[in-house]
Amino acid sequence: MNEVAGRRARSGGGATRRAERTAVSFESARFIQRNIPNFEILNEEALQIIEWNAETVLEEIGVNFVENPGALDLWRAAGADVKGERVHIPRGLARKLCATAPSSFTQHARNPERNVEVGGRNLVLAPVYGPPFVRDAEGGRRYATLEDFQNFVKLGYMSKWLHHSGGTVCEPTDIPVNKRHLDMLLAHMVLSDKPYMGSVTEPSRAEDSVTMSKILFGDAFVDQNTVMTSLININSPLTFDGIMMGALEVYAKANQAAIISPFIVGGAMAPVTVAGTLTQVLAEVLAGVAYSQLVRPGAPVIFGAFVTSIDMNSGAPTFGTPEAAHITYGAGQLARRLNLPYRSGGSFCGSKLPDAQAAYETANSLNMALLAGVNFMLHACGWLEGGLVSSYEKFVMDADQLGTLHHLAQGVMMDTNGQAMDALREVGPGGHFLGCSHTQSNFKSAFWRSDLFDYKPFETWAEEGARDTQALAAERVKKQLADYQPPEIDPGTREALEAFVATRKAAVPDAFI
Amino acid sequence: MNEVAGRRARSGGGATRRAERTAVSFESARFIQRNIPNFEILNEEALQIIEWNAETVLEEIGVNFVENPGALDLWRAAGADVKGERVHIPRGLARKLCATAPSSFTQHARNPERNVEVGGRNLVLAPVYGPPFVRDAEGGRRYATLEDFQNFVKLGYMSKWLHHSGGTVCEPTDIPVNKRHLDMLLAHMVLSDKPYMGSVTEPSRAEDSVTMSKILFGDAFVDQNTVMTSLININSPLTFDGIMMGALEVYAKANQAAIISPFIVGGAMAPVTVAGTLTQVLAEVLAGVAYSQLVRPGAPVIFGAFVTSIDMNSGAPTFGTPEAAHITYGAGQLARRLNLPYRSGGSFCGSKLPDAQAAYETANSLNMALLAGVNFMLHACGWLEGGLVSSYEKFVMDADQLGTLHHLAQGVMMDTNGQAMDALREVGPGGHFLGCSHTQSNFKSAFWRSDLFDYKPFETWAEEGARDTQALAAERVKKQLADYQPPEIDPGTREALEAFVATRKAAVPDAFI
Repeated sequence: MNEVAGRRARSGGGATRRAERTAVSFESARFIQRNIPNFEILNEEALQIIEWNAETVLEEIGVNFVENPGALDLWRAAGADVKGERVHIPRGLARKLCATAPSSFTQHARNPERNVEVGGRNLVLAPVYGPPFVRDAEGGRRYATLEDFQNFVKLGYMSKWLHHSGGTVCEPTDIPVNKRHLDMLLAHMVLSDKPYMGSVTEPSRAEDSVTMSKILFGDAFVDQNTVMTSLININSPLTFDGIMMGALEVYAKANQAAIISPFIVGGAMAPVTVAGTLTQVLAEVLAGVAYSQLVRPGAPVIFGAFVTSIDMNSGAPTFGTPEAAHITYGAGQLARRLNLPYRSGGSFCGSKLPDAQAAYETANSLNMALLAGVNFMLHACGWLEGGLVSSYEKFVMDADQLGTLHHLAQGVMMDTNGQAMDALREVGPGGHFLGCSHTQSNFKSAFWRSDLFDYKPFETWAEEGARDTQALAAERVKKQLADYQPPEIDPGTREALEAFVATRKAAVPDAFI
Repeated sequence: MNEVAGRRARSGGGATRRAERTAVSFESARFIQRNIPNFEILNEEALQIIEWNAETVLEEIGVNFVENPGALDLWRAAGADVKGERVHIPRGLARKLCATAPSSFTQHARNPERNVEVGGRNLVLAPVYGPPFVRDAEGGRRYATLEDFQNFVKLGYMSKWLHHSGGTVCEPTDIPVNKRHLDMLLAHMVLSDKPYMGSVTEPSRAEDSVTMSKILFGDAFVDQNTVMTSLININSPLTFDGIMMGALEVYAKANQAAIISPFIVGGAMAPVTVAGTLTQVLAEVLAGVAYSQLVRPGAPVIFGAFVTSIDMNSGAPTFGTPEAAHITYGAGQLARRLNLPYRSGGSFCGSKLPDAQAAYETANSLNMALLAGVNFMLHACGWLEGGLVSSYEKFVMDADQLGTLHHLAQGVMMDTNGQAMDALREVGPGGHFLGCSHTQSNFKSAFWRSDLFDYKPFETWAEEGARDTQALAAERVKKQLADYQPPEIDPGTREALEAFVATRKAAVPDAFI
């Protein structure tokens, strides 16, 4: 199918069917366009020290490109000093290579209203990525299945403040490991019309992601546009493994976007200090982005930083901590100085339950990510237990809180209506503003309110069962999944996607490791 | 008793008694000294518009000083246009009067190690203020008693990250309303050695607060030093009632500090827009601070802003919202341009329980207050249900989270140790940092960790009862109250305080309204 067919599908159907669809349409906010400053924690001198040190790391210590002779050839040709699998990158070379990467790009969705602009002062929010477990209030913690995966895609599609359908919203462990990417992509493509991520666990699965995207968008459209943003993790410290780089190569060649991201528990995979970790993050991203540009100059990439701290007592990763905030703020400054879009932040927490610990840690993480200038936030909702668990209740709790980021980013309206001098004059000392004309005319746009939290008087709340946030969220999950209706899709496209999945699944035996 | 006696008491007792004391001493952090920038949401033009508009409000609309002929006389003499109880303050006059207020001041504690500096780049944290109810996990929600009050003072004294004992940590509703201030002050003075607040509910109770402080610190010391910071709320919009102003007059004359603070639910007591609310906040603080300086030039005051938003559906106040953050950021900028210490923020939430809603809203509020440059944070822990409830569990949960603000405020260390180049060289690509010498030598200072949250592996956590944060906090409350031991106090001082309380109580009949 091609792009034209896709458009026709969206306008197809009789008047009755359209009316039905209107009744179940789900409001979705546009990606965040910031009208507030970034929080800049590092001064110019600190930034220059870190940038100098990162170049020292690249030149003197070097980075490993493992099981990837082609990468070593590219680096050698670019002027790096390659010894075995160790690549020593002369000072300034990596930064120079990064200059061809675009400072922002459009990721297209099959519904063009859901397109996102990644970069600049924008913030795109995508859900949790990667957990092998799910948890809900009723069933507790268990291995995730394809049904769970589909449920999370549905919840993401219905979440007003979520701009992106994400990638591995949980691992469908009931599907063979070498085939589950096909079912995951099919779910994102069919159950949602928001932008999505491709598979990275094998280069061939990245190829499948490109092929399925071509079925959905049309060959020519995918050749000319970015329709996927995928997550390429660096094996910190300073190691780029062949499989992840293989996936990166597929995406870069196809002009599809990649987040190039250190994955760091500070103190374990990076030094125990903030400045040391930032140095390593910058060195790793410089090397990774430079490599993407060696593969295809101009390929869209994102400066990624997944960094958390460690509990020095137990060795457990910890979330929502001050040091993680320092690193997130600092990495944002480094990314902007490279003119690259920036990925960091998320609904991070270490708690086993969607309780107060989870919410403190998550709110700390979400707030710092907004102010750090993050452009693409993976894990923006649903993350629990250090990323081991996708939580149904926390997904809708976090997704609701993402509304606060939208309103925070709007900044302060300073027009005549915002100044409200008429209201002050009308009401005067000792008066009340609720009834004044200014309040009435700003009634709807005035204040953000949660669609989930309890704002009722104590007595009403007690009569209704004295429910906590988890109980309210569990109710919301049930209601949303019951109300879900899929976005329109051309039946021929859907059949073609399903046929491709079936063919690819039949071609090889199941593998579970 | 005098200051010298107080000092002697602290060094009194034999070696055995000292050893016992050492065993139960409670670590307390010094007030926060920021090494990070403030977040400035308003540009110069916006600030000038708000400042201009606030002066317009003062001149054209005016403010009411109710049932306070003395205040009207002072304003008239200063050059204001007084009509009835309405005071029209010519443009520029209030700001000029504010200039005599100090930009920072020391509040002394009876233990000089607990003295706090209010102003500059500092942040002093004080607990929840005012709730008539308490809640704990076991007993639920109930009217607060003096025993609850004493318990919260004990918890505050034992909280490492809390610098201040506060004021009305809950209302001891079992004590007559005209006498409870005596028991409250006695508790702060005897059960804690951190700085405290005075009574403001009647001018005579403010006088009692000064008298008791003189018993504790000595007459001369109190005459020459600030030993109380008390909360003077403005009756927004634009109204200064006689009782609160009477208390302010007592404290200003005694050179004791006052927070002069609008109390605003936006949309009800102020316009529904951020800029309009900031205009009103500034006008009210200008008038209140100017009045304090008319009473006594140089009296220490704090620019207060308690502002939250309203749920336009139900009329309930809402907390942790983006608009409250905008106002808190903006008011901080306005306070700094007036060279006044700034009070705002707190562990605000609307939730009925110390659950996820409470924690999201609280973390939103705490983070924005730190970055807004707040100097004095009342309600920093223990606030629940829109301030109707002091929660035992939330008190210790929030008090633990206050540690994150201390670490955030430290900023990023950029010395050689912080840069960690030796660690990067020692470990190299593919290595592990936990065992390296840099990590070992920075083991203790590296990362903040919660003393409350669960960082254990899932299996351990499940075996131990799969407890949520509230359950962990309930255990901590019990342990802290069991472990509590009072700070040393000179027995003569204690007896003198108790005698004063008894005498004052006997002098008048009980009143319960």
